[in-house]
Amino acid sequence: MGWAIALQGGGGDIPRSLPPERAEPRLATLRRCLDLGVSALQDGRAALDVVELVVRELENCPHFNAGKGSVLTSDGTVEMEASIMDGTTMGCGSVCGLSTVVNPISLARIVMEKTPHIYLAFNAAEAFARDQGVETMDPSHFITEENLERLGQAKEANRVQAMEGQPPIDDNSRTGTVGCVAVDLSGNLASATSTGGVVNKMAGRIGDTPIIGAGTYANTLCAVSATGKGEAIIRHTVARDVAALVEHRGLSLQEAAERVVAAVPRGSFGLVAVSGAGEVTMPFNTAGMFRACAADSGYSEVGIWPDADGDAGGES
Amino acid sequence: MGWAIALQGGGGDIPRSLPPERAEPRLATLRRCLDLGVSALQDGRAALDVVELVVRELENCPHFNAGKGSVLTSDGTVEMEASIMDGTTMGCGSVCGLSTVVNPISLARIVMEKTPHIYLAFNAAEAFARDQGVETMDPSHFITEENLERLGQAKEANRVQAMEGQPPIDDNSRTGTVGCVAVDLSGNLASATSTGGVVNKMAGRIGDTPIIGAGTYANTLCAVSATGKGEAIIRHTVARDVAALVEHRGLSLQEAAERVVAAVPRGSFGLVAVSGAGEVTMPFNTAGMFRACAADSGYSEVGIWPDADGDAGGES
Repeated sequence: MGWAIALQGGGGDIPRSLPPERAEPRLATLRRCLDLGVSALQDGRAALDVVELVVRELENCPHFNAGKGSVLTSDGTVEMEASIMDGTTMGCGSVCGLSTVVNPISLARIVMEKTPHIYLAFNAAEAFARDQGVETMDPSHFITEENLERLGQAKEANRVQAMEGQPPIDDNSRTGTVGCVAVDLSGNLASATSTGGVVNKMAGRIGDTPIIGAGTYANTLCAVSATGKGEAIIRHTVARDVAALVEHRGLSLQEAAERVVAAVPRGSFGLVAVSGAGEVTMPFNTAGMFRACAADSGYSEVGIWPDADGDAGGES
Repeated sequence: MGWAIALQGGGGDIPRSLPPERAEPRLATLRRCLDLGVSALQDGRAALDVVELVVRELENCPHFNAGKGSVLTSDGTVEMEASIMDGTTMGCGSVCGLSTVVNPISLARIVMEKTPHIYLAFNAAEAFARDQGVETMDPSHFITEENLERLGQAKEANRVQAMEGQPPIDDNSRTGTVGCVAVDLSGNLASATSTGGVVNKMAGRIGDTPIIGAGTYANTLCAVSATGKGEAIIRHTVARDVAALVEHRGLSLQEAAERVVAAVPRGSFGLVAVSGAGEVTMPFNTAGMFRACAADSGYSEVGIWPDADGDAGGES
């Protein structure tokens, strides 16, 4: 037993040739967010608070596809989505279609805690954000030069990037999400995931991130946050399936996660997960996944590509 | 082996004292839709076509909470949602936030078949519907006198009806959905679910119906459509969990469905399910559930409340 935390900043066809000036700021943010989460867990904070805290920081980093830095729809707009789940209570909150909310993950938590609902969408979610007084910015705040360029490239290629069956692309940012899972000193589990979606998506398209059981899931056994091709993650109910294999087949967290990742076409997705026993795993079947983890045992890992042994993801 | 079909018109706290003039039109519609589905299956039509066909008919019936007859948001508007899943291909389509589309289930199928996405929402889903030329009507078409009354009662009671922990209410229409599951002569499975949501919901609230794995799920083992308190169905990933128990624990369809229904608070929900082997089950833990089923074996059932033995749901 003991605390554990894992975070992801998106999985995809990240080339080994990724220039250091693009890799380093993300790795630095992952390290900083990992430290933040570890300190909070060591201070005895609840897993639910920790995953929200960490995902807020990741949303604020313009190098990841969530919050500021979200990729653009075919209309050139931002439509952010997020969800959060408390494994102890099975409480959950989801939002989608946000264009002005600085931290979608915190709005998801407010939906969970202050409404009789789980899931609010688009205009009504925006109106609710204003009612609740959460920080908002003009939609232009979220749109980076880099994402305008990515949209231009995607339109030129006349396709929605990162759909199943599409050829590889050169950066994770077209499919990225951010997410965090944690187990705290009391053994409570939580998961949080946030994203801008996929470049050049149709306006109004919803992906896996706000869908409980797809991009985000937590119960008393484990917590899971997924990244990758949203449509594959939805149809394979990925986050719930990891937990279901632990629950129904008695697999270890690592075995369950690896089985789920192996069951879908290569290049589709990855995930981070922790168990109530403090295990951590971060498997992926994409070229790479921005990820970081740490556990009470002293184990820690920060990385992008599979390690030298070809092992995709670590296990404490 | 052989074909089988089951449909539901909503579960809830349906009193045994429900006047015949309210029960009979619904039972008659269920019988008519069952006959329609059975004929189509006997004619060799694909399960995916059959579930769409049946749900369209249920959407067109003003006595059920879906399509025409959808309950109203706290703003007095209609926001319809639906999803469909093909168990053979794992293809799926979802829509939510519709206010003018006559048959949301057919739009969900078009999203599945004609876009790279699974799930379209609100304005963009409406715009997509117009692009595709599906039948639309003025929003007022969907609003019945009965639902204006229900909204008034709900507002008077100052609560969102049918949330977890709320006291019983006198009619299923506040929580109802419609849904159909089928296995065809070739053993293909499909599921379809459609709803107006829950009376007096916040505008923008999304329930379980458009969420793959919650309200709707199908794979090569079974197909499931759920009805009841959407938030409970989402957090318990109900439709996927039935299939997961069959897949991972080797339970029969009936055992799996009953275990999922038993695991949540009484009064929460019910479901209809069929297996690839032609089994049918329709358990619920609400007072009643409008339901109907038939199978190649000759077994058939149409009902509202548990039968005389207290058995909630039939099994062929």
